[in-house]
Amino acid sequence: MTAAASRIKVGIVGGTGYTGVELLRLLAQHPNVDLQAITSRKEDGMPVADMFPNLRGYVDLRFETPEKAGLDQCDVVFFATPHGVAMSQAKELLAKGVRLIDLAADFRLQDTAVFEKWYKMPHSCPEVLAESVYGLVEVNRAKIAKAQVVGNPGCYPTTVILGLLPLIENGLRLVDVGHIIADSKSGVSGAGRKAEVGTLFSEASDNFKAYGVAGHRHQPEVCEQLATLAGGPVGLTFVPHLVPMIRGMFSTLYARILPEAMDTDFQALYEKRYANETFVDVMPPGSQPETRSVRGSNHLRIAVHRPGGGDQLVILVVQDNLVKGAAGQAVQNMNLMFGLPEETGLRHVAVLP
Amino acid sequence: MTAAASRIKVGIVGGTGYTGVELLRLLAQHPNVDLQAITSRKEDGMPVADMFPNLRGYVDLRFETPEKAGLDQCDVVFFATPHGVAMSQAKELLAKGVRLIDLAADFRLQDTAVFEKWYKMPHSCPEVLAESVYGLVEVNRAKIAKAQVVGNPGCYPTTVILGLLPLIENGLRLVDVGHIIADSKSGVSGAGRKAEVGTLFSEASDNFKAYGVAGHRHQPEVCEQLATLAGGPVGLTFVPHLVPMIRGMFSTLYARILPEAMDTDFQALYEKRYANETFVDVMPPGSQPETRSVRGSNHLRIAVHRPGGGDQLVILVVQDNLVKGAAGQAVQNMNLMFGLPEETGLRHVAVLP
Amino acid sequence: MTAAASRIKVGIVGGTGYTGVELLRLLAQHPNVDLQAITSRKEDGMPVADMFPNLRGYVDLRFETPEKAGLDQCDVVFFATPHGVAMSQAKELLAKGVRLIDLAADFRLQDTAVFEKWYKMPHSCPEVLAESVYGLVEVNRAKIAKAQVVGNPGCYPTTVILGLLPLIENGLRLVDVGHIIADSKSGVSGAGRKAEVGTLFSEASDNFKAYGVAGHRHQPEVCEQLATLAGGPVGLTFVPHLVPMIRGMFSTLYARILPEAMDTDFQALYEKRYANETFVDVMPPGSQPETRSVRGSNHLRIAVHRPGGGDQLVILVVQDNLVKGAAGQAVQNMNLMFGLPEETGLRHVAVLP
Amino acid sequence: MTAAASRIKVGIVGGTGYTGVELLRLLAQHPNVDLQAITSRKEDGMPVADMFPNLRGYVDLRFETPEKAGLDQCDVVFFATPHGVAMSQAKELLAKGVRLIDLAADFRLQDTAVFEKWYKMPHSCPEVLAESVYGLVEVNRAKIAKAQVVGNPGCYPTTVILGLLPLIENGLRLVDVGHIIADSKSGVSGAGRKAEVGTLFSEASDNFKAYGVAGHRHQPEVCEQLATLAGGPVGLTFVPHLVPMIRGMFSTLYARILPEAMDTDFQALYEKRYANETFVDVMPPGSQPETRSVRGSNHLRIAVHRPGGGDQLVILVVQDNLVKGAAGQAVQNMNLMFGLPEETGLRHVAVLP
Repeated sequence: MTAAASRIKVGIVGGTGYTGVELLRLLAQHPNVDLQAITSRKEDGMPVADMFPNLRGYVDLRFETPEKAGLDQCDVVFFATPHGVAMSQAKELLAKGVRLIDLAADFRLQDTAVFEKWYKMPHSCPEVLAESVYGLVEVNRAKIAKAQVVGNPGCYPTTVILGLLPLIENGLRLVDVGHIIADSKSGVSGAGRKAEVGTLFSEASDNFKAYGVAGHRHQPEVCEQLATLAGGPVGLTFVPHLVPMIRGMFSTLYARILPEAMDTDFQALYEKRYANETFVDVMPPGSQPETRSVRGSNHLRIAVHRPGGGDQLVILVVQDNLVKGAAGQAVQNMNLMFGLPEETGLRHVAVLP
Repeated sequence: MTAAASRIKVGIVGGTGYTGVELLRLLAQHPNVDLQAITSRKEDGMPVADMFPNLRGYVDLRFETPEKAGLDQCDVVFFATPHGVAMSQAKELLAKGVRLIDLAADFRLQDTAVFEKWYKMPHSCPEVLAESVYGLVEVNRAKIAKAQVVGNPGCYPTTVILGLLPLIENGLRLVDVGHIIADSKSGVSGAGRKAEVGTLFSEASDNFKAYGVAGHRHQPEVCEQLATLAGGPVGLTFVPHLVPMIRGMFSTLYARILPEAMDTDFQALYEKRYANETFVDVMPPGSQPETRSVRGSNHLRIAVHRPGGGDQLVILVVQDNLVKGAAGQAVQNMNLMFGLPEETGLRHVAVLP
Repeated sequence: MTAAASRIKVGIVGGTGYTGVELLRLLAQHPNVDLQAITSRKEDGMPVADMFPNLRGYVDLRFETPEKAGLDQCDVVFFATPHGVAMSQAKELLAKGVRLIDLAADFRLQDTAVFEKWYKMPHSCPEVLAESVYGLVEVNRAKIAKAQVVGNPGCYPTTVILGLLPLIENGLRLVDVGHIIADSKSGVSGAGRKAEVGTLFSEASDNFKAYGVAGHRHQPEVCEQLATLAGGPVGLTFVPHLVPMIRGMFSTLYARILPEAMDTDFQALYEKRYANETFVDVMPPGSQPETRSVRGSNHLRIAVHRPGGGDQLVILVVQDNLVKGAAGQAVQNMNLMFGLPEETGLRHVAVLP
Repeated sequence: MTAAASRIKVGIVGGTGYTGVELLRLLAQHPNVDLQAITSRKEDGMPVADMFPNLRGYVDLRFETPEKAGLDQCDVVFFATPHGVAMSQAKELLAKGVRLIDLAADFRLQDTAVFEKWYKMPHSCPEVLAESVYGLVEVNRAKIAKAQVVGNPGCYPTTVILGLLPLIENGLRLVDVGHIIADSKSGVSGAGRKAEVGTLFSEASDNFKAYGVAGHRHQPEVCEQLATLAGGPVGLTFVPHLVPMIRGMFSTLYARILPEAMDTDFQALYEKRYANETFVDVMPPGSQPETRSVRGSNHLRIAVHRPGGGDQLVILVVQDNLVKGAAGQAVQNMNLMFGLPEETGLRHVAVLP
């Protein structure tokens, strides 16, 4: 890579939410990034650091309307927007040679019928979708490097897929893939920065609940990815819960070991699979990971348990939903797309306590 | 009191906020109350217990429109509404012999010019206001018993007035009343159950800030009451802060002792003043009250400090902002108005931890 | 019941923990209870309300040593102590005609070998154990009424057993009882009031983790009870988690429906089973219960889900771990043992928000 | 500085507390630091990352006993220990040419009588103390650069001194220095990682209280520094409070403006004083800083208020108590002592939300 290529001109569409401010935090400290523009129709003209005072002294940009932002001059544009925005602007930007990373769902599901069912809108550019890549680096590294459009994975799917991957990829027959359970728990920031009663402090604090038990958008996303990896359909019961903490995501995954796989060394299997992954940490046997061990960092940690040595496997996965589950993974994708070492700008030690 | 008089028919206008659900919690367990109606235009027809599941099995009412609610059949109507609603309906209900307790600000400030300045609306029934009573029981007990309309005090004012009362009432000259400081802290439920970004869990949790430093509506309310008690103007600097907890209010009050009052036994002064008050607890010397010691209860606790024996008095006051600071105080007023023992239905032990 | 019988003389051993203060909160408001004594060797002479300021004005007792407390004059003694204390004092008190309710584990497990394995101590009075009753009212109501010694259930077991009961009792063959999963979550108060690093605010706040994945004492307790109900062994994978909230417990239970039971109306099954239970609330179909809906109350709420109409049943259960999961259930047992209506002194509306 | 000099060999004594892990987080990411050793007698042999899993992949050291640690081979040793440890080891290390930064109180107070009164121990090396420098960079920059021993300021004093500095230094007569009030609020991590009941999650969460009202160790520390700056005694009432958040400190400072200073432009005064300070941010007029705006960062933010334009000045100050209030300030001192740009390794954007 030439010196010139090592500077990346970056635009952000829709930076007023939590994935937006997290992108800004990471990109403002990234050694190869020039932040060019950040758009918000509603906040046009407002200094970004007025909305997010943690950025005072680090980000001098103001929010701009898309018209003024000159996104077509960027090397890459991140969409930290509601579902449906990225696909509406994709073709135009691609035509100008701009690469896209969408943090919403527009490019996560290859099956447009499933997309339309769960997101209640038609997919407006299926041909772009067909060329896009699902941005889970640990699965699609080579494709991402060459992609023009990356669909950044959902937060829950990142934990569930990486937590199950070693069990099912490559046609392995280790667990009953028809009856997998993902009991997942998320901090409240996963619900975004919208003004809603349900995520008020006085509603969500000192409380715990499940939600979306009857069906959640991330279930089909996980199933599509797992089916591709497994080479056939996967049955998943997915129950998300809301935890009174800001950041952090925890998935407890239950899979029943098949009779013929009872002798498998699952710890070794996981360690081997992720041996070269900077951001996936397979913890020592017996570990009980905590979400705070990854707070503010791009690391995801996994512990493999088999209580009583029986036929039930219990996989514990933690990540920061805003980093590895959103903005950090997006930057990891960008690094790959622009030929940078994958961890560039992402070596932050988690903030504990 | 006759047996008949011992049943009180109660209506609530606007029960979808936190003071509303707290009123319902207290009134549902009150031995003399028959809950007749609760209004909400928006939620007409919805069972109250669907919105507030803690009431399942205790409150069978549904929200109704005011038109259907038959409020004029009630003995007393509580207004747990935005400012301005109570005064718009007061005359009509009073004409039917219904008594009113307003938990908003319509009947707190006798000076309508001050009201209009801070609440940005004209006062629509100054003649009712003139007859209304400020519902701070420990100050106005006799008047409240006879009142047709009670303006329930603001949450901050309850702590500040009761915390300073023994120092200033009856023309006492003990502290510099021109320079009192109230550094107050409130749990987030004080901001209500409105969908707003600033009180989202992810904004208010793990955070602390001041607000309203340039001016807060409760400052003139406190000043009006203190001036009445002191028989002259009182200078108050009031700085409210937001604490990442649901319930609880803490006021740290600073008053400089006048040279001629340096020999005063302030602990004795407070103990004597509140000796017969069920809901005001003057703690032993050296105490450091905690908000959780009153969580869910109608008690307010006070500790009197004089660090180093100098000329600076430090008064610490705690209450539950939704109980003594709102719904509990309102029920205390109701008890007085209907000739019941003041503590009826209010003897709840605080929930700790 | 005679008037005399309607007063109960109550003693508490070990009242300095969270189950102790919660017992005190409930008993201080119980219309039939005379609190006689509360013991603590360490705090002998200290007013209880100095340690727990929420009790100021409600409990005038001081902690006493067991020698001075006159427990043998009580009608019933609650043990809110570490495991092993109740069994060491049981025979002596029983000999004086005192009835016992142990909130620790001494009388929960009938299999003493299992007790000794998990609690690392021999059982010192197996003959008393054999006569004791497991204090889950909804299962053992008749036996409890006549019991001299009641082992109050563990907090997790209360949720798991009541959540699964309708599926397995009476030899029903509805779900695969060999592979049940209980993914449970508890507030931090479940860990008690011991000074430990792991439950410090700065460790447990803004964090989520699993613990005891390799094995937890409540697993064999649940299994013993379920096996009795089912008439045969039950296989249970139990994974507890720690939630950054003070009170509240949530169990997500997963059971696979057997082919022959696919037509069962599970909602109806649960509603029928608990139709007459004051403290078990089967919520309407589609409900997603929250722990705050029972905060400070003795209610336990259940929601029955079957995502996508498939073969996986998902049962959601919430309770306050200190009330229905500990002190409230203990008082419910006491009411039964002394012939009082079961809900006496327990009709508290949950505190929300 | 030579290339060789740009590497700093660092040792840490006592790294098992919160200032210890925070030092490790910052130093592990510092471009010029070689972490040589970290001591703990109790945890000898334990990998640091086992205790603090956020450090997995960043810190490979194990805790060692002081005997094995080779601290005398370091360029600088940080003491993140209880009060009294640093002074016991200072002479020996200084004799080997090692420079010291103490995060405890051993080198904060020049008046040893005051030290002994508040810390209940004699000062064991007053001659070292006499040569030591109080490590508040914005006040003592030149002296720190040459110091062999730096006493890192207390967390509260950092906010109070920097918040009042522009008002009192250089003999200014702007406010009544005899009656200053500091109403300060701290997150719970300020109490350290000791197992104590008072800082358990279930005690400190959903609660607010004052503590140390009768006297706190940081009061004399602030007074000594302010007196030096003001050239005469300063009267300070200091009331600390505990906030249910992990990190963050907020001081609300009240000073009465002297009649002759009523025309002062205080905003301009502050902006000018701190114009060249990287880590002190004087916010625009009307700002209301939040602790989360500095979470995990070394920034301290100040807002200047004068409610109603009267004679009462209200200064709001926020910092992260573990960074600018402890470990970050210590690294800032180290940078100065070793000729590095002051902000080296300290340009972290605060984590928000």
